[in-house]
Amino acid sequence: MQLLPPKSTTADYLAQAEALAAEFAQTAIERDKAGGTPLAERNRLRESGLLGLIIPQEYGGLGQGWDTVMQITRKFAAVDSSIAHIFSYHHLGVASPHIFGSIEQGKRYYSLTAKNNWIWCNGFNPLDRRVILTPEGDHFRVNGVKSFCSGSIDSDLIPVSTVQDGVEGFRIAIVPTQREGVTVNQDWDNMGQRQTDSGSITFNHVFLAADEILTPDPDRAIFKTFRSCLTQITFTNIYLGITLGAFAAAKEYTQTSTRAWLTSGVDKATEDPYILQHYGEMWMNLEAATLLTDRATQLVQTAWEKQENLTAAERGECAIAIATAKAFVTKLGLELTSKIFDVMGTRSTASRYGFDRYWRNLRTFTLHDPVDYKVKAIGDWALNDRLPIPDFYS
Amino acid sequence: MQLLPPKSTTADYLAQAEALAAEFAQTAIERDKAGGTPLAERNRLRESGLLGLIIPQEYGGLGQGWDTVMQITRKFAAVDSSIAHIFSYHHLGVASPHIFGSIEQGKRYYSLTAKNNWIWCNGFNPLDRRVILTPEGDHFRVNGVKSFCSGSIDSDLIPVSTVQDGVEGFRIAIVPTQREGVTVNQDWDNMGQRQTDSGSITFNHVFLAADEILTPDPDRAIFKTFRSCLTQITFTNIYLGITLGAFAAAKEYTQTSTRAWLTSGVDKATEDPYILQHYGEMWMNLEAATLLTDRATQLVQTAWEKQENLTAAERGECAIAIATAKAFVTKLGLELTSKIFDVMGTRSTASRYGFDRYWRNLRTFTLHDPVDYKVKAIGDWALNDRLPIPDFYS
Amino acid sequence: MQLLPPKSTTADYLAQAEALAAEFAQTAIERDKAGGTPLAERNRLRESGLLGLIIPQEYGGLGQGWDTVMQITRKFAAVDSSIAHIFSYHHLGVASPHIFGSIEQGKRYYSLTAKNNWIWCNGFNPLDRRVILTPEGDHFRVNGVKSFCSGSIDSDLIPVSTVQDGVEGFRIAIVPTQREGVTVNQDWDNMGQRQTDSGSITFNHVFLAADEILTPDPDRAIFKTFRSCLTQITFTNIYLGITLGAFAAAKEYTQTSTRAWLTSGVDKATEDPYILQHYGEMWMNLEAATLLTDRATQLVQTAWEKQENLTAAERGECAIAIATAKAFVTKLGLELTSKIFDVMGTRSTASRYGFDRYWRNLRTFTLHDPVDYKVKAIGDWALNDRLPIPDFYS
Amino acid sequence: MQLLPPKSTTADYLAQAEALAAEFAQTAIERDKAGGTPLAERNRLRESGLLGLIIPQEYGGLGQGWDTVMQITRKFAAVDSSIAHIFSYHHLGVASPHIFGSIEQGKRYYSLTAKNNWIWCNGFNPLDRRVILTPEGDHFRVNGVKSFCSGSIDSDLIPVSTVQDGVEGFRIAIVPTQREGVTVNQDWDNMGQRQTDSGSITFNHVFLAADEILTPDPDRAIFKTFRSCLTQITFTNIYLGITLGAFAAAKEYTQTSTRAWLTSGVDKATEDPYILQHYGEMWMNLEAATLLTDRATQLVQTAWEKQENLTAAERGECAIAIATAKAFVTKLGLELTSKIFDVMGTRSTASRYGFDRYWRNLRTFTLHDPVDYKVKAIGDWALNDRLPIPDFYS
Repeated sequence: MQLLPPKSTTADYLAQAEALAAEFAQTAIERDKAGGTPLAERNRLRESGLLGLIIPQEYGGLGQGWDTVMQITRKFAAVDSSIAHIFSYHHLGVASPHIFGSIEQGKRYYSLTAKNNWIWCNGFNPLDRRVILTPEGDHFRVNGVKSFCSGSIDSDLIPVSTVQDGVEGFRIAIVPTQREGVTVNQDWDNMGQRQTDSGSITFNHVFLAADEILTPDPDRAIFKTFRSCLTQITFTNIYLGITLGAFAAAKEYTQTSTRAWLTSGVDKATEDPYILQHYGEMWMNLEAATLLTDRATQLVQTAWEKQENLTAAERGECAIAIATAKAFVTKLGLELTSKIFDVMGTRSTASRYGFDRYWRNLRTFTLHDPVDYKVKAIGDWALNDRLPIPDFYS
Repeated sequence: MQLLPPKSTTADYLAQAEALAAEFAQTAIERDKAGGTPLAERNRLRESGLLGLIIPQEYGGLGQGWDTVMQITRKFAAVDSSIAHIFSYHHLGVASPHIFGSIEQGKRYYSLTAKNNWIWCNGFNPLDRRVILTPEGDHFRVNGVKSFCSGSIDSDLIPVSTVQDGVEGFRIAIVPTQREGVTVNQDWDNMGQRQTDSGSITFNHVFLAADEILTPDPDRAIFKTFRSCLTQITFTNIYLGITLGAFAAAKEYTQTSTRAWLTSGVDKATEDPYILQHYGEMWMNLEAATLLTDRATQLVQTAWEKQENLTAAERGECAIAIATAKAFVTKLGLELTSKIFDVMGTRSTASRYGFDRYWRNLRTFTLHDPVDYKVKAIGDWALNDRLPIPDFYS
Repeated sequence: MQLLPPKSTTADYLAQAEALAAEFAQTAIERDKAGGTPLAERNRLRESGLLGLIIPQEYGGLGQGWDTVMQITRKFAAVDSSIAHIFSYHHLGVASPHIFGSIEQGKRYYSLTAKNNWIWCNGFNPLDRRVILTPEGDHFRVNGVKSFCSGSIDSDLIPVSTVQDGVEGFRIAIVPTQREGVTVNQDWDNMGQRQTDSGSITFNHVFLAADEILTPDPDRAIFKTFRSCLTQITFTNIYLGITLGAFAAAKEYTQTSTRAWLTSGVDKATEDPYILQHYGEMWMNLEAATLLTDRATQLVQTAWEKQENLTAAERGECAIAIATAKAFVTKLGLELTSKIFDVMGTRSTASRYGFDRYWRNLRTFTLHDPVDYKVKAIGDWALNDRLPIPDFYS
Repeated sequence: MQLLPPKSTTADYLAQAEALAAEFAQTAIERDKAGGTPLAERNRLRESGLLGLIIPQEYGGLGQGWDTVMQITRKFAAVDSSIAHIFSYHHLGVASPHIFGSIEQGKRYYSLTAKNNWIWCNGFNPLDRRVILTPEGDHFRVNGVKSFCSGSIDSDLIPVSTVQDGVEGFRIAIVPTQREGVTVNQDWDNMGQRQTDSGSITFNHVFLAADEILTPDPDRAIFKTFRSCLTQITFTNIYLGITLGAFAAAKEYTQTSTRAWLTSGVDKATEDPYILQHYGEMWMNLEAATLLTDRATQLVQTAWEKQENLTAAERGECAIAIATAKAFVTKLGLELTSKIFDVMGTRSTASRYGFDRYWRNLRTFTLHDPVDYKVKAIGDWALNDRLPIPDFYS
């Protein structure tokens, strides 16, 4: 007799994610046009249980690794990169207390998140130093505005980087979205990643208990710099997912709808020498991009498992592998999401296909931090054997 | 005593066009989002008198050359490529009776257009052979559907390529848009060139008088193949205009809004070595593109002035110069309209800037005919000294 | 007491190869200038025992896989791609009786090669059909000329593709180089791969015993098409080796000899933002190239181990993986071997450095078969899910 | 009755140069292999009278402009860029007293050069500050070594940039090559531009009269910065000439020798879709490069004619036009001189064709000053409207 249902395996989660992706794909084009918050899809994510992927089983989660999270993120990104965006930022949020806080804080937020099926958003934008933390007796107050808070609307928790007078660097606060004084401004209206609600949040004299401020664990000097690696590998997988999605859409369209050109001398577009050339080049580069991303993702998971034993060298090589994959995918993706139209032809520009959203989404998201400085950092490694100095972006 | 006001010079028309362009620019972003017909702007073009640019003065026009039309088209394209599109297709329409018809038809339509201030649209799509011309007594009837009829809504005349049983090639008919049986279908909704009304027109038993069918002038065997050169140089100038517009917008944004990157070591984005590099490369290629387009435009005007004396070799070399410019601008433009975001940064993706429209417009319009076959034709000239065989696209 | 010395492990062979590579590097530049036959180096290869790498231990060889052969080939290619060329063509020769012949022939040539420490060259150029095989009693005669016979001078055996009247396709003959009537023409003088002796061989009424003609094993219909996969993966690894060698040489030069540019604002060339960018891009693409090549190499070894059980689909997917790696490395390598000068500067063009040999060698060798048709084949797979039809090049 | 023969026109000089180029082409491949000094060719240049091209007629020269010099340089470069190099550096030398010296010095060296049919070489390398000028009574002594002295062997005059204690910047000295204490070291042995004798010259206590040191004319503050524009436009034309020469050679080879590929489905290589594509792209970019170079050359001549009236803005815009052309040609040329092999095929790598010399020559010469900083300067103009600060390279 089995009292407990058999534990799901990773493959089950991937299958579940694929089913969800197929569902999201049905409405992705119209939702891209509409912008705003994908409430129905967020609820589907809540129901799926996949929000607990990275939470260890002992705290009520599914106990999966970042490799699984990344595979699922990539699948979502192939059909709807806004969903992939908020899905993955949730996981970055979930892991933040574990990374930046005390052991106890890590455990507590894992448990509470699993129990309440919370969705986390993002409030980390380090280029925006306007959110001020002020001690007030045994607690704190938060005031100011933070921009680029992806997934803010309908979120349960906001991890926020705050500035406290006299304290170097940021202090990370975990603010419940529903708390008094928090206003999620619905001001995201951009050309891509349109359903990510990456707008601003205003904090007006918001109360924070002392243990809602993350207190770094002293043993984790290196590990606590690992969050930017997680962020960067997430972006890499989303960029790759978008690019793979664009390729798959183009392939289906060329096969079914593209006509041979007048002077091509072939009967079907699928035999056109230049169309075949473009597909060959796209494939070749996609294979390279996938291998680079898979390798970097695997390194991230390996590094993650080392926790406080992670060395600076290991962390640095992981960062370089991520940067390499990210820069490669960025360049390829921007080219490919524009090139697909050459292999589809004039009629593929009809709005009902929404084929421009791949480029718009990727173009928007790849501006998060400049690829030029990623390439420079790679160069510093390649030429000078110098590892990148950990910061919010590398 | 001068009874007549002094005749405007070309410079006056350019200044007038610049003023109009500045005006169109005010609303270009919102009109791009809205799609549909730019009625107000079409009326401004009507009022401007610029619809008569290419009509000889003896028939009531302004007597300008294609070089002037192209300069103005380029200016419009820099701020609103939909306006440039319908503006230039109008001129291609105006010139069509002169190119494809008898001497008398050329004169008649020049005169009537000037007198009535008509706007022409386009109904030439040669890949769509569904419009059938049927003789009926001393007149004709037209039936069928034509796709990609740019500028159709609010137009006065439609030049249509029709198929007549027993007649090789197309017969060109000039159909008044208001005539009974003509339905302009408002079915253009594409990712770019959104205000060009490039949808379909249905012809249902439409009456046509015999002299509304263009009768080729036998002396103009070569000259009547020149319309595709005009079409292609028009596209080239619009593509270049879009690209120049994107560059100008990016330059202003970088100068005024882009922030220096965290680890760049410079105070202002305008001193960033990679941003300078991107601007250098963009400029370098824009200069090349402009020289190629200017040369081709000048050759077009020279060829146009030769009229029936145009030789096959002259026509062919003109076609190669156009193809060269067009292919170069296409490649550069697609790259540049995506690259501009790298020199502007994350915040430039806000919808209110509408900076993605350059890429969407160019990506849509450059699919008119495949650049791969333009490059192949250039290669056939470069390697085999073979001039392109005149067809609807070369 | 141990009568036999302990068997070397793969790592030992790699270490041995590295030592040899370091030795070959000492004279590579002068030997490139001289051209001709690297006799001393061939003797060092003979002495090393590495000529037996791919021969199973039961026939007296070292029993290594193609992955080991490829790793060593890559190491040689990094310092001297002519040596890598003749070294790897030797192995392609050694394996040919096993692939194209009867079981017995495979065993026999393995054994004889191991016993005699023979070096094989190449005589397979399938575009050259001038070598004629003529039955004469119970034996055969060979006449004609074969071009592009790499490694011909100082070789012991020549596998030759011959044409026999009335027989479809080629018949493969194994001709001892010393046999009467064989003339190795010393006519290789090309801009790259200068010490590969890839000139022509003349066969004048050369006697061949019946069992010197390879008789295909009927069970190996698919496996016998695998030789072109081996050839192509060999080239890929050599191309990659040349590219890695160029990168390593440039890195050392920039670190030690390149001066900061006048207006760069940095003290050392190793801090120049553009030099770092170039190194970043080179590294990024090298990483991609290496992952693609490693994967394809691994697939080749896996397929090789399947022998007669290899399926057409497995062979095809292996061929696509090789083609993908090869096309990628070709494009990258040609760019990188030219780009290195930009990060080294003016003085790096001195003849004594021989830095141009990377480009000359790669440019020469990558013309073996056109990369355009590799890309097309990849495209046919990517778009149409069609595997390449096995031939001499795919 | 005409006592004097009619004066040659520019067209005559071009025709004469073409004839010489055809002659030089006969031996260019073997001379490239041999390296060293092209004495016979230098004598042919002396006999031709073309060494006086830029010298005004009133001083005994041919009175041509830089546009003519550049056209001829380009022609020479297409077949032998070493000859083009020494030919054009001669003219840069001839003009140096006029640019850097007093009015009188300019006239004197023009006259003496015309009268004696002298050949000038180069000794300006500004990165090498080892040549010291020391006053000694009413004259001077020169000591030290100067590197990269193109055309040094067999030259008559060396313009040298020297450093004098207490004097800012360089002082330009004109040193007769035959003077006591001058040793032309025959130490140029590089991978390209092999017959330019760009080695070093040693000056050992060399006597110089006071008027052999150029004394700047105070009215020419801007004009005297123009020498670097002349140098840069010269390089641009040589780079373009090399590239055009490579293209022409490839075209002839493909037409006459390249075979259609096995699986191309065409009978002749000249019909191969990918070969046509490559030719199309090469041509397209060559056209752009030629237009950019022609424009910059024309601007140089216009600026030259302004002499002391040249403004800083005019000089700056000329410099940007040159930089734009030079950077474009550099990028194109390096790609094209490698790409030609793809359209020629395997056999084109035979040493007897010498087709690698285009890449070797261009790769060597384009390292004169880094293209990255040219692009940056263009970017500074494009983004910040800043003209380049005149120095030895811009």
